[in-house]
Amino acid sequence: MSELSMKECEVCRFGAPQVTEEETQKLMLEIPDWKVVKVDGINRLRRTFEFPNFIEAIAYTNKVGEISEEEGHHPAILTEWGKVTVTWWTHKIKGLHNNDFIMAAKTDQLL
Amino acid sequence: MSELSMKECEVCRFGAPQVTEEETQKLMLEIPDWKVVKVDGINRLRRTFEFPNFIEAIAYTNKVGEISEEEGHHPAILTEWGKVTVTWWTHKIKGLHNNDFIMAAKTDQLL
Repeated sequence: MSELSMKECEVCRFGAPQVTEEETQKLMLEIPDWKVVKVDGINRLRRTFEFPNFIEAIAYTNKVGEISEEEGHHPAILTEWGKVTVTWWTHKIKGLHNNDFIMAAKTDQLL
Repeated sequence: MSELSMKECEVCRFGAPQVTEEETQKLMLEIPDWKVVKVDGINRLRRTFEFPNFIEAIAYTNKVGEISEEEGHHPAILTEWGKVTVTWWTHKIKGLHNNDFIMAAKTDQLL
């Protein structure tokens, strides 16, 4: 279990700083299966998880939903037959916060 | 309850015809809150449903999952805080089949 996945989200306020490029590179080492994608000008963390059918995919969606409720931080979860694509970013700062990396690591641990 | 929502999906084989433009216009009258969107060259039906929180959104995602398993036809379901975007299309024919309109109508009935 990665150290990152054991951390808890901190309260993120409007105006909190986004992670720097240098911090991002360091954090990505702990979640190597995720990619930074830019959508609508906003950096986000994204990973697609594969499953043998729809039922297992939606079960994973629910697990991601549970941890997001626990931490009070919610991703976009795209559920399809055999795959779930999870995208984390922080709405309040329109970009990536340390919390997003923590949640990505926690998402990995659900597998 | 719309007539369309009470129909069942028929088996869709590779090479089955897509709905025509004329059929689409007629069917859209029964699901007026849906839009036809073209993504990666493929016509799809899409609607976003709004909810007051994440828990109700993911509960709806699960309901959509249940009917898709029942009918053996699966959409893409994007779950976010306060909204769920459902997209129906038929992979086998890379476009819209009558089944997609039936499933869109069934999705509406879940509200």
